[in-house]
Amino acid sequence: MTAETLLLDYGSGGRASQRLIADLFFKHFDNPLLSAMNDAAILDLQGPVAMSTDSYTVDPLFFPGGDIGSLAVHGTVNDVAMMGAKPKYLSCGFILEEGLSMELLERIVTSMGLAAREAGVLIVTGDTKVVPRGCVDKVFINTTGVGEIIANPAPAGNRANPGDVILVSGTMGDHGLTILSHREGLSFATDIASDSAPLAHMVEKLVYEVGDISVLRDPTRGGLATTLNEIAGQSGTVFKVREADIPVRESVKNGCSFLGLDPLYLANEGKLICIVPQEKAEKALEVIRSLQYGGDAAIIGEVLSAEGGPAKAGQVVMETPLGGHRLLNMLEGEQLPRIC
Amino acid sequence: MTAETLLLDYGSGGRASQRLIADLFFKHFDNPLLSAMNDAAILDLQGPVAMSTDSYTVDPLFFPGGDIGSLAVHGTVNDVAMMGAKPKYLSCGFILEEGLSMELLERIVTSMGLAAREAGVLIVTGDTKVVPRGCVDKVFINTTGVGEIIANPAPAGNRANPGDVILVSGTMGDHGLTILSHREGLSFATDIASDSAPLAHMVEKLVYEVGDISVLRDPTRGGLATTLNEIAGQSGTVFKVREADIPVRESVKNGCSFLGLDPLYLANEGKLICIVPQEKAEKALEVIRSLQYGGDAAIIGEVLSAEGGPAKAGQVVMETPLGGHRLLNMLEGEQLPRIC
Repeated sequence: MTAETLLLDYGSGGRASQRLIADLFFKHFDNPLLSAMNDAAILDLQGPVAMSTDSYTVDPLFFPGGDIGSLAVHGTVNDVAMMGAKPKYLSCGFILEEGLSMELLERIVTSMGLAAREAGVLIVTGDTKVVPRGCVDKVFINTTGVGEIIANPAPAGNRANPGDVILVSGTMGDHGLTILSHREGLSFATDIASDSAPLAHMVEKLVYEVGDISVLRDPTRGGLATTLNEIAGQSGTVFKVREADIPVRESVKNGCSFLGLDPLYLANEGKLICIVPQEKAEKALEVIRSLQYGGDAAIIGEVLSAEGGPAKAGQVVMETPLGGHRLLNMLEGEQLPRIC
Repeated sequence: MTAETLLLDYGSGGRASQRLIADLFFKHFDNPLLSAMNDAAILDLQGPVAMSTDSYTVDPLFFPGGDIGSLAVHGTVNDVAMMGAKPKYLSCGFILEEGLSMELLERIVTSMGLAAREAGVLIVTGDTKVVPRGCVDKVFINTTGVGEIIANPAPAGNRANPGDVILVSGTMGDHGLTILSHREGLSFATDIASDSAPLAHMVEKLVYEVGDISVLRDPTRGGLATTLNEIAGQSGTVFKVREADIPVRESVKNGCSFLGLDPLYLANEGKLICIVPQEKAEKALEVIRSLQYGGDAAIIGEVLSAEGGPAKAGQVVMETPLGGHRLLNMLEGEQLPRIC
């Protein structure tokens, strides 16, 4: 690199920008589509295409289990995958603060390159804006992903049917608690790490080995509780889950109890909710558990009809370990800003 | 809306986020793909696909001729179109500062909706992050666009051939000078306005009525001079342009002269450079001039071979009105931060 901190020049569109692109982005994102350096990349996509976007503003930039770079790849790859799709291409837009350390930027870009390779996607087009000091807090990243939908029909929020079974691919709350505790410098943070991970491979296996899947959704901001409410609302059904069956790490339970947080409202970045017809549930569980990021998968509940059910359409009922029932509401306010 | 200023809640992923989406985004971006509310949108795309991304950080948010919302649509639509493509879908990622006026946000979203309709694209998927006060300057927007490539072969920077003719679709420097003078509160600003406009229709007409086009590129950051240098570099040729033939408004010339700026280095947001074989040049000029955003189009120069030419491969030579020649270099530093 030609400077140790980022200058406004690097976002000018001129020669300094070109050096940044050549020295940093081509090095870590190397692929022929990106290096053609046209205004847009030319993609090869077959059949119906899924597209999703997310901006990442996480604070701190680096945390146990990941950083803003890997998170920006995983988060968008996972959103595309949840359509029953194989993510193929990402765009990447950086908004950088003048004076940012180049070494820090290169660590982030390196992490993005590695995460993209693991997830099997190419970063094919990008944009870098450098704004004056104080106009942005260090680094914000937008990624937008496209992929080929391999499931037919594609899973969708309105396809949850009464009788379907609800699975989660692992423990809840790891990412959210990690960010919060790391930000606050809390000492119990040593035991926990973000679950940030790519789920494209898991989705591919589910589609090919389980077949018809009603819903796939990753419980990110708002956590499991909010995401279940969204899906129940979209499908006009009632969800019933058993608290005792929802996997939560002991360290996360303890941390949440210390801070007065509920792990079911905390963000996850490497977990999915999978809703399948009852006869497919055991197979889906077996497939997910066989994979690197699915060892703690569990069946947590069922989809019920709103007619004659224990609650109104769009509601989520949770059975407590003592056998009582309570409504699990959607997140109302903000638990944690800048969680992703 | 339920609050007059933006709260952190609105970016939480919970109920407050959903209200923002329903009240604001669905209202102005209304289309069935967006309102399905899944993690990703399902797109219908045929053939090779072009993808491009840009983040918009322009300051001020509103300026004569446009605002950050219309600019965020035009800029990305135009980048996709420059691949000889018909832009079809946009994603939209907002990063918003806590405390932002809701009325201001709605003005921006309204403007995006109108710009998308004029450009013929659907905003199909989005993301909203709200960050604490001071972590971002009011509003940043990322848009990522995809479209179907209708030109075969697609125009590309490395396809400029000796003998080709260089056209521009209108006057240079309007956007850049507008932003700077408006920001500084300069009085001559009353006469000028940004040229921000969608060029998708112009590209479609060029592809269908002119046929083989060597290069299309929009001279945004870094201006005409920088963009011509990029293309000359990619194609290993020499470009020769005539200063007297490059259209620049009198008011822009005067404003630039007052501020010591060169209009050939100022950003444009509704103009394209079109490079075509010599025998197609008159037809291309006629097509562009017949359109709403092309009335001031002009032929400004030619592509020369680097062998035996007046300069080295990748260089741009400008003939001055007095018949002299000088090298038109790429922008080195930063003329204007936050120009787009």
